[in-house]
Amino acid sequence: MTLREKTAQILDTAYFRNFIIGVILFNAVILGLETSKTVMSKVGDLIHFLDMICLYIFVAEITAKLFAHHLRFFRSGWNLFDFVIVGIALVPAAQTFSVLRALRILRVLRLVAVSPNLRRVVEGFLSALPGMGSVFLLMSLIFYIGSVMATKLFGEAFPEWFGTLGASGYSLFQIMTLESWSMGIVRPVMETYKYAWAFFVPFIMVTTFAVVNLLVGLIVNSMQDAHAEESNAATDSYRDEVLTRLEAIEKRLSEK
Amino acid sequence: MTLREKTAQILDTAYFRNFIIGVILFNAVILGLETSKTVMSKVGDLIHFLDMICLYIFVAEITAKLFAHHLRFFRSGWNLFDFVIVGIALVPAAQTFSVLRALRILRVLRLVAVSPNLRRVVEGFLSALPGMGSVFLLMSLIFYIGSVMATKLFGEAFPEWFGTLGASGYSLFQIMTLESWSMGIVRPVMETYKYAWAFFVPFIMVTTFAVVNLLVGLIVNSMQDAHAEESNAATDSYRDEVLTRLEAIEKRLSEK
Amino acid sequence: MTLREKTAQILDTAYFRNFIIGVILFNAVILGLETSKTVMSKVGDLIHFLDMICLYIFVAEITAKLFAHHLRFFRSGWNLFDFVIVGIALVPAAQTFSVLRALRILRVLRLVAVSPNLRRVVEGFLSALPGMGSVFLLMSLIFYIGSVMATKLFGEAFPEWFGTLGASGYSLFQIMTLESWSMGIVRPVMETYKYAWAFFVPFIMVTTFAVVNLLVGLIVNSMQDAHAEESNAATDSYRDEVLTRLEAIEKRLSEK
Amino acid sequence: MTLREKTAQILDTAYFRNFIIGVILFNAVILGLETSKTVMSKVGDLIHFLDMICLYIFVAEITAKLFAHHLRFFRSGWNLFDFVIVGIALVPAAQTFSVLRALRILRVLRLVAVSPNLRRVVEGFLSALPGMGSVFLLMSLIFYIGSVMATKLFGEAFPEWFGTLGASGYSLFQIMTLESWSMGIVRPVMETYKYAWAFFVPFIMVTTFAVVNLLVGLIVNSMQDAHAEESNAATDSYRDEVLTRLEAIEKRLSEK
Repeated sequence: MTLREKTAQILDTAYFRNFIIGVILFNAVILGLETSKTVMSKVGDLIHFLDMICLYIFVAEITAKLFAHHLRFFRSGWNLFDFVIVGIALVPAAQTFSVLRALRILRVLRLVAVSPNLRRVVEGFLSALPGMGSVFLLMSLIFYIGSVMATKLFGEAFPEWFGTLGASGYSLFQIMTLESWSMGIVRPVMETYKYAWAFFVPFIMVTTFAVVNLLVGLIVNSMQDAHAEESNAATDSYRDEVLTRLEAIEKRLSEK
Repeated sequence: MTLREKTAQILDTAYFRNFIIGVILFNAVILGLETSKTVMSKVGDLIHFLDMICLYIFVAEITAKLFAHHLRFFRSGWNLFDFVIVGIALVPAAQTFSVLRALRILRVLRLVAVSPNLRRVVEGFLSALPGMGSVFLLMSLIFYIGSVMATKLFGEAFPEWFGTLGASGYSLFQIMTLESWSMGIVRPVMETYKYAWAFFVPFIMVTTFAVVNLLVGLIVNSMQDAHAEESNAATDSYRDEVLTRLEAIEKRLSEK
Repeated sequence: MTLREKTAQILDTAYFRNFIIGVILFNAVILGLETSKTVMSKVGDLIHFLDMICLYIFVAEITAKLFAHHLRFFRSGWNLFDFVIVGIALVPAAQTFSVLRALRILRVLRLVAVSPNLRRVVEGFLSALPGMGSVFLLMSLIFYIGSVMATKLFGEAFPEWFGTLGASGYSLFQIMTLESWSMGIVRPVMETYKYAWAFFVPFIMVTTFAVVNLLVGLIVNSMQDAHAEESNAATDSYRDEVLTRLEAIEKRLSEK
Repeated sequence: MTLREKTAQILDTAYFRNFIIGVILFNAVILGLETSKTVMSKVGDLIHFLDMICLYIFVAEITAKLFAHHLRFFRSGWNLFDFVIVGIALVPAAQTFSVLRALRILRVLRLVAVSPNLRRVVEGFLSALPGMGSVFLLMSLIFYIGSVMATKLFGEAFPEWFGTLGASGYSLFQIMTLESWSMGIVRPVMETYKYAWAFFVPFIMVTTFAVVNLLVGLIVNSMQDAHAEESNAATDSYRDEVLTRLEAIEKRLSEK
């Protein structure tokens, strides 16, 4: 057995996986403690040191996996995900930009990649996405058209909400979630443009209806999947039996 | 082959459809750029010119379709939709009224008419509407009654929210979406009319219940459609086979 | 044919029903116009007169129905509903109390009783209610307990929101609808009682979960009703046929 | 029959159960009246006395149950629940801490344990929980990661909302319920951090999608349970009959 095969074997043991889960959870606690000023003022150096250790373990783990599986490593989306998440922390600038430093906590998401249970849930979520593709495309279209119209109609008078395409898109997303749509946005706009409701009320109806249809689609799809799996097992064996028996009877009758 | 048949044939090619999709997308970008002041101050004339070109292409396309299919063109709802959307831009006043100019972006909706995928989604949405007719009628009735009552009861003291039938209708729609219904509307009203909650809380319950029933109806309908399609294929062929075999056995028995 | 039978027959004609629907719609418009000050200042007397006419027609209709069906009239819930709605307007005080005057618009709801289509929708809604009985009881229990606790814990410091059982119940209903629950209520309360979230966040979770379960129950019930109706027709006739044929085959075999 | 068996028998009678339900309801009213200042200033002593009586009855009931069933009493979750709820009031400090005194109203929840109808509803709710375990774990993970990131990114500038992990977690829960997420939180944050939407909008999408998937899972599960129960009764008996008949036919054929 070569060293490579041996490495692959070790990486595959439950013992090793549990060790990595432990490191991830420990790292999560460390990164959580990092947000507390009292903790950091007292044992900040220790926290940084422990975080570094965790990072080194992850780097070693991924290096080992790369060694064991070569480029096949990148065939799995979960491995790629691990690689990027851990890699972020190694970018030199990562210590200076606060955003990149904040992204380190995403390493905790590795838990999903490592735990089969969570992985199944996330894969279930992702498998629902393609079926929603056309509706998403339609929603994007509605949002783009709505943003252009809102910018043209209300941009002059309300630059903060509808001054640019981006601002309008954000405001329309807020309106779609129904947050302060009337008291916060539409009533003030209606004081300048009396008929603004004729734009916003249909927008709300169309987008809510689209979201509801997404939901209905999701329900119907999962129901069918569930239904197909379950009912067929029993029904198929019954049907097979009926047909074989009928065949046997026919044969007997024709033999005589 | 006459010129008319030839035109119809060209209009039907995938090549021509993709070209039109390209023009629509290009026009969408152009109309998006039109919302940016920096872009318009630099290359405003070019943007207007390119928009004009897109419009001419659409006019030419629809004229060609009209030539190819004569009045049959108008039999399809999607064609009518294209005709109106493009036609708006040709109304002379369209350059002066800002609302009509803003409506030009609706041309991007032609994408739905042209792309079979999006078309199916929208047709799915529309097919759900007739089944919701009675509930919509009931909702309108509830809104009309609610508006008249709210105007009579609270119109005097809160003219901005319940001063007219229209204002009441809008406020009740806001309340149905649960946006700021209590802190924004009902609590202030209750300072004047102590028992205002006795109107608004039942209104919220009834309308939310009606909306929930709409949703349930949608789910049950799509489920039945999906169910009918799927299960019958396998079941029908099985049942047919059982019945033919039984018949064959019966025949054999009677032959002897 | 006695006068009574004749009356019953006339009341049952489509012609008479359409006439009543017309009067209801006309009355709805009249009551809508009554909310407009400009209309009332110009033709207020005419509006009042026309409303009176409509009322007289309804009174005459119900009197005729009472004459034709005697006490059987009250056996139908819809008739009782008509009787009460019309009767309200005849109470002498109805002209002086603004609330009673506002209730006149409820007459438009008679449209539901008269139109078979709307009637079916409302009956569908009502038939869903009994199945929700236990969950409603549970919700009332949760609201009562929540109100008592909120009043005891926060009533002293926030009398406007939690001063009495009634005030607490209303505030908790608002919180259940998620309207301004945090920015409007819980954050201010948390400035006095730091751990108030430990009461409100679980309350939100429990009530939302109960509402979601109500919804799930509604969906499952309608689905089963729909399923039972549909699938059985075809399946039953198939099964009957299979069984009769098998019986016939058995009989033949035993005859020999 | 020993005294113990006799006690167990009495505790099991419908008469005794109805008596306890009566005491619970009476206690609920008493605790409700306790929130009213006018009532307490007049008959406060009586209210306290009656509450004490109810408590003594509950203590006697549970002591009797313990006597009758010994430690088997604790095998039922509902009994444990009763024991804790009643026990709280007996803690000496319960009269001094207002929170513990407010918890006394939880005794009304004993109604759920006692009434079989409510018990079934709650058990239905609880049975749905295990299936939601993985999704809950995932949600906790998302909330933890989101809280750490929000604290690191916005904690400095907005200590009230994102100053600590706890504050961030609460604010993110508020944002997930869509309450004032934009006007109240994200727009103010965006004035300091222009790209804050790039954190909050995806957070909203991911959490809402997860909640929707929870809902879909609940619906599909209850549907399958309902489906399994219902359809099998009729189908199974039909299938059994077909198979026995086929067997009978086969036997006859082989007999000859």
